[in-house]
Amino acid sequence: MPKSKNPKTLDELFHDALKDIYFAEKKILTALPKMANAAQSPELKQAFQKHESETERQVERLEQVFEMIGKKPQGKTCDAIMGLIEEGQDIMKEYKGSPALDAGLLAAAQAVEHYEIARYGTLQTWMKELGLDEAARLLGETLEEEKKTDATLTQLAKTAVNQRAEAA
Amino acid sequence: MPKSKNPKTLDELFHDALKDIYFAEKKILTALPKMANAAQSPELKQAFQKHESETERQVERLEQVFEMIGKKPQGKTCDAIMGLIEEGQDIMKEYKGSPALDAGLLAAAQAVEHYEIARYGTLQTWMKELGLDEAARLLGETLEEEKKTDATLTQLAKTAVNQRAEAA
Repeated sequence: MPKSKNPKTLDELFHDALKDIYFAEKKILTALPKMANAAQSPELKQAFQKHESETERQVERLEQVFEMIGKKPQGKTCDAIMGLIEEGQDIMKEYKGSPALDAGLLAAAQAVEHYEIARYGTLQTWMKELGLDEAARLLGETLEEEKKTDATLTQLAKTAVNQRAEAA
Repeated sequence: MPKSKNPKTLDELFHDALKDIYFAEKKILTALPKMANAAQSPELKQAFQKHESETERQVERLEQVFEMIGKKPQGKTCDAIMGLIEEGQDIMKEYKGSPALDAGLLAAAQAVEHYEIARYGTLQTWMKELGLDEAARLLGETLEEEKKTDATLTQLAKTAVNQRAEAA
């Protein structure tokens, strides 16, 4: 990284944000199998499982970016993702056995996806600003995956899942 | 609301989500003046102030939707927004006096915007499913405002704010 001095500059903010999303991705990785397990519809189960494999690659990409900036991959507690995942767990408890469970799981998952879209979007801007072009290319792939996952979940929410919840 | 029975159905999930976003909007309303106060650039300050007025109207729209479904406007603690706002407060503390402060505030604000975009998107799908067309139209206005705010913040992040952080 270029400058590292007091007061804190963009490179430090970038490093902090990298630690934040690294922590978040690892938390998501532990949450996804539980979401897949709880999901009632096979389509939603499959969507969560697919995203779990993607998330594994996303964690690896972050590790590559840490290496590019000469830092050790390290997480930093991210209150936002803790809260978002907590909401998903509450849904699993409160809506267990309910026809609206999948709709609730979808809502929780889409809030997580949007958190990631916001974070990777911000990281893109900063990496370009800092001249970290290869890192920007790499995490750009992740950003596209998150957007695609969100679109898939929107599609699921509009079709089978909610109809089932409402018709029950 | 149509059905209300055990097990929980989509109308109850919708009511829960409405309480969640109502709580979130009120929290955002108290956070925005602090963000505006902390922001260094006049453009960012102005963007936060503008969004504060918008958020006041968004709270009112939610109250109208509560009325439409015959419920009292009521919030429900939303862990996700608490975490997201906490992150913004951490940035204010850790980056106080730093040239990267505005870039950090922008990142925090965009994470909040994306949370709202996810929630209002989900609510749209559910309201259409539940035949709550007037509510869908009303909160559709809010969704568009959130998307516009996010686009404005992206623009600010790409221009003055980050350059200042990096050049410092």
